[in-house]
Amino acid sequence: MGFRHKDIIALKDLTKEEIELLLDTADSLSEINQRDIKKVPTLRGKTVINLFYEASTRTRTSFEIAAKRLSADAVNITASTSSVVKGETLSDTAANILAMKPDIIVMRHSVSGAHEYLAKRVSCSVINAGDGAHEHPSQGLLDMLTMRQKFGKLAGLKVAIVGDITHSRVARSNIYGLTTMGAQVFLAGPPTMMPPGIERLGNVTVCKDMREAVDQADVVMMLRIQLERQGKTLLPSMREYSRYFGLNPAVLALAKKDAIVMHPGPINRGVELASSVADCDQSAILKQVENGVAVRMAMLYHVCGGEPVE
Amino acid sequence: MGFRHKDIIALKDLTKEEIELLLDTADSLSEINQRDIKKVPTLRGKTVINLFYEASTRTRTSFEIAAKRLSADAVNITASTSSVVKGETLSDTAANILAMKPDIIVMRHSVSGAHEYLAKRVSCSVINAGDGAHEHPSQGLLDMLTMRQKFGKLAGLKVAIVGDITHSRVARSNIYGLTTMGAQVFLAGPPTMMPPGIERLGNVTVCKDMREAVDQADVVMMLRIQLERQGKTLLPSMREYSRYFGLNPAVLALAKKDAIVMHPGPINRGVELASSVADCDQSAILKQVENGVAVRMAMLYHVCGGEPVE
Amino acid sequence: MGFRHKDIIALKDLTKEEIELLLDTADSLSEINQRDIKKVPTLRGKTVINLFYEASTRTRTSFEIAAKRLSADAVNITASTSSVVKGETLSDTAANILAMKPDIIVMRHSVSGAHEYLAKRVSCSVINAGDGAHEHPSQGLLDMLTMRQKFGKLAGLKVAIVGDITHSRVARSNIYGLTTMGAQVFLAGPPTMMPPGIERLGNVTVCKDMREAVDQADVVMMLRIQLERQGKTLLPSMREYSRYFGLNPAVLALAKKDAIVMHPGPINRGVELASSVADCDQSAILKQVENGVAVRMAMLYHVCGGEPVE
Repeated sequence: MGFRHKDIIALKDLTKEEIELLLDTADSLSEINQRDIKKVPTLRGKTVINLFYEASTRTRTSFEIAAKRLSADAVNITASTSSVVKGETLSDTAANILAMKPDIIVMRHSVSGAHEYLAKRVSCSVINAGDGAHEHPSQGLLDMLTMRQKFGKLAGLKVAIVGDITHSRVARSNIYGLTTMGAQVFLAGPPTMMPPGIERLGNVTVCKDMREAVDQADVVMMLRIQLERQGKTLLPSMREYSRYFGLNPAVLALAKKDAIVMHPGPINRGVELASSVADCDQSAILKQVENGVAVRMAMLYHVCGGEPVE
Repeated sequence: MGFRHKDIIALKDLTKEEIELLLDTADSLSEINQRDIKKVPTLRGKTVINLFYEASTRTRTSFEIAAKRLSADAVNITASTSSVVKGETLSDTAANILAMKPDIIVMRHSVSGAHEYLAKRVSCSVINAGDGAHEHPSQGLLDMLTMRQKFGKLAGLKVAIVGDITHSRVARSNIYGLTTMGAQVFLAGPPTMMPPGIERLGNVTVCKDMREAVDQADVVMMLRIQLERQGKTLLPSMREYSRYFGLNPAVLALAKKDAIVMHPGPINRGVELASSVADCDQSAILKQVENGVAVRMAMLYHVCGGEPVE
Repeated sequence: MGFRHKDIIALKDLTKEEIELLLDTADSLSEINQRDIKKVPTLRGKTVINLFYEASTRTRTSFEIAAKRLSADAVNITASTSSVVKGETLSDTAANILAMKPDIIVMRHSVSGAHEYLAKRVSCSVINAGDGAHEHPSQGLLDMLTMRQKFGKLAGLKVAIVGDITHSRVARSNIYGLTTMGAQVFLAGPPTMMPPGIERLGNVTVCKDMREAVDQADVVMMLRIQLERQGKTLLPSMREYSRYFGLNPAVLALAKKDAIVMHPGPINRGVELASSVADCDQSAILKQVENGVAVRMAMLYHVCGGEPVE
């Protein structure tokens, strides 16, 4: 059974089977990235447009490399050089890009819902590379792939997610994906950064203390403090934040012995993560980045109608 | 008979036969853009430099996609990151780029005449992707291709061009191309935006009233109000402009029943074009963008010495 | 014998044999740039990341074209759009880029030593595309290739380097490379731009007068006045500078009859170089740029484990 969606906008929309298919494919394709010749002709003659309304080297580069390793043609469009500056609407920009017959538009946009709006208006595939504080499905998938590689499964895992939950699309995609896969999610963060009612999403527990979330966890996922997205919320001073919600070796010791530490990057060393923790053996941070290319290859592959691989 | 020019700088320089050859080739190549594998090896091993002194996502992306679908290598250079900022002359920049042995330089430059200056100094091909208020030949060709696809021919068509004629390279390329092909061009716009003596260019009529230009027209081409190019000319207020020179359904009803509406984009909805007109069945605006890739493939193909295709 | 270094950071580190190998390979590969189909499959499936913390169209474009002509996939990352702006350390950026499994990182960075720091931390190859006032090995190699093509050898040549020696990575790479190869280097420049003790580097002579350096020289290499790197040093007025350290026909006449004039570009015409000299028959400036692509192909080829070619 192939992947039946034209687009990948949100992990909220995917079933357990669909997430498993994407992770299985990513696992298979990841082997390409280890080769001497890191290229297969799978998407030859396909055009992938990376349409980034917000700058993001990491995600754009990862998608660009993923596209090129599948032999697709990747074309980058960034907002600063686009007709966005001339006041064109997203709808008109989308229609114009579509008229050039791309196969996939990979878009990052600061407005939640922009991707659904776009996907309804274009016949090509749309992949969400991050939208406001809504979802970041490729990050959620690469996080789950990293956990599954370590523990062999996702069901039953205890995953602590710590930081600014309110503004984190990474947290949201992980919460949707992980609860769909049967993992237990424990959230911790300052009260101003914890969206009211989030525990209603499913197997999600809001903890008052970070230690409670980390206690006996299999995975400790630290979120980045994103000053650029704080809006009107008052940010606790960095030192205060770090004391209560930063991960140091003492707090990490509360987790299971073989727990892994994750972070979507870029890291603010000494703020959400002690430098020693970022670089310790339990850190899976670079494995996450590595898995990012494989997961994005799988996403590009399946929205183009790729069959399951083995 | 192949295309005998090294460069494509201006439609003013092309004969009826040469324009027809480019449009015929674009028609043939446009089929590639509809395929599942949108790539042919025609320009494999050729290097296309997109040298953009003015930002233009639309045109740059279209040329980049065109180059990649022909298997050429496309390299983007934008003024903001180029040695232009270090004060290098166009002549020195050109000589330096040429030394890297590109096959084609696609250039957008704000100075009229920059392309002829460049073309004389380099042995590779130069394609004008827009120069000041002079010409924008790829836009003129894609406009003519769109008209020809609709009406089967260009000779005898009545084409209304409405807006800021003075500052429009799109208007200028269309006027040259269309009159060469035997179409009749009717211009309308505020007196401050109508260059004196333009009717001397050939089969061109200047109308005092937009309605006169649109009356019984086959094509109504609306120009973009480009605030960035107004210079010292006083811009009428947007509301005034829109009342007298915007296209609304009532004015469009004066044109022939099967007339098409065109616009080079990006659209200022509600200014030069009512939103309902931009999206109506008669709108060929997205077909123009689609044809843009095919026309640019044809231009790249022919300046590289490509033979006529069928 | 192949090239045994993972990285190319500095010409200071290379032996005579290694420099010769790189120049021989560049000579062989330069033939590809003259072909109709300028592409070979040598580095197919390899990923080259151009990581530029300082803007440089010329060097970035040259490396990008070199990579593409060898069929590698080139991905550009510029500091302005990278997570550098989010405060990530070079070490973390490097680790993240490495996790995407590139084969080569081509980096320009304003800090001397950044490349060695990077190269020690990543398993892929690192090529220095310019670091602060330290070295610019690809420029040094293309300069030496240009000299060798003209004179058949480097040993015994008299090379004058004139200008701001203190801030010039070009000068430094040439001094290391040329003295290794047995050439004699004569330096001239304002006292504030001449680093104390530079004559201790080997076969290097510091001249008080530019005429002394140019006298009977085989090569006159003029450096660019880089205002952006002057720091606190007081720049002599341009007119003064040009009078004492600019190359005009009268000074050039002191060199050997078949001497060549070189400049790393972009040229400040009328400052370090009279316009007539830049364009005279003795000018090898554009040959330098042309050789730049070939030299960079050779560098990419050898750090990837390429065998000597013939």
